[in-house]
Amino acid sequence: MAYDGAVDEPSPGTRRGAYDKGVRRRREILDRAIEVFAARGAEGTSLRAIGEAIGVSHAALKHYFASREELLIEVYRAAEERSVVEDPPPPDATVVGLMTHAARRNHGVPGLVQLYSTLVAAALEEGHEPSREFFGERFAHLRQLLAERITAEQAAGRIRPDVPPEVAAALIIAASDGLQVQWLLDPAVDIEKSLELLESLLGA
Amino acid sequence: MAYDGAVDEPSPGTRRGAYDKGVRRRREILDRAIEVFAARGAEGTSLRAIGEAIGVSHAALKHYFASREELLIEVYRAAEERSVVEDPPPPDATVVGLMTHAARRNHGVPGLVQLYSTLVAAALEEGHEPSREFFGERFAHLRQLLAERITAEQAAGRIRPDVPPEVAAALIIAASDGLQVQWLLDPAVDIEKSLELLESLLGA
Repeated sequence: MAYDGAVDEPSPGTRRGAYDKGVRRRREILDRAIEVFAARGAEGTSLRAIGEAIGVSHAALKHYFASREELLIEVYRAAEERSVVEDPPPPDATVVGLMTHAARRNHGVPGLVQLYSTLVAAALEEGHEPSREFFGERFAHLRQLLAERITAEQAAGRIRPDVPPEVAAALIIAASDGLQVQWLLDPAVDIEKSLELLESLLGA
Repeated sequence: MAYDGAVDEPSPGTRRGAYDKGVRRRREILDRAIEVFAARGAEGTSLRAIGEAIGVSHAALKHYFASREELLIEVYRAAEERSVVEDPPPPDATVVGLMTHAARRNHGVPGLVQLYSTLVAAALEEGHEPSREFFGERFAHLRQLLAERITAEQAAGRIRPDVPPEVAAALIIAASDGLQVQWLLDPAVDIEKSLELLESLLGA
């Protein structure tokens, strides 16, 4: 049942008021952490060092985030959401164009691409269930989203009809991720040219 | 000038003999470390913990490897060389076939794919010059190798003549890397199908 706004509406000072304050404080911590990570990356920073860098006590951080891993995931999630809001893809973007747009946006925040790589690498290791769950779901969601766009583009005659949408979706995401890594190691690697090649190959 | 085997050939017990012994010991340590990483991955293992797992003193490890990062890079390099020797690609492999073959081989050693991801993520961070140098050179070498194969396949009429070799080489490597990550997080992702799609799209 959808919440209709009439029941259980709490006044400030009640539990809901404290809850709202907690949500705001958590958001403030995330906002500051995003700035730190965008500039410095994630490596070698304990929860304590993160707290010092953003001027929040270790105890307060532990109150809002169960672990360093959980904080890093939330930083990544919040930063990605923010960048999508600030710089949304053009409404007529093609399926590969969506990835190209995101890659171009990421050029401006290499710290977040590093954070992404660090978290994905952690997700592949034993004992990192939060990262594993977050990226497992994220990739599955993204594959589904792109597969639907591919099907739509096929119907519109823009993508070859013999391309299996799920198989192509995994390929496009993989290409975008892998190219960003190569570009960070060698700025001469041209992400957009390689993605444009893939787009033209997929074209009907 | 090439070494002709006639000059400065040392007998055992001389400096060269001690050097050979050191090379052998270093190789033994790497061989055992490969087994540990193939089974357990790299995360959270200090140089000391690695020494304990393979029964080598911390001092001995420090003698052969300047840092944990250097040991991990050498483990990855040695494991990759070994797997190529044990299971070389078929001589008539296409350029995408080379990547498919490597991906299939990696299926058997997920610990090494994890190690690869961990080291690549580290290479993107500040203060990891050895990883940065190793992977920067490795990607550059691989792109050049694949670009040459693409040019040859174009000459043989197997790859579309309008595909820029360097741009396609970066794309193929990125796709292979990214697909292995998605597969480790979700075994339903079919690396070979996505690489076969890319191969058929590139086909003349």
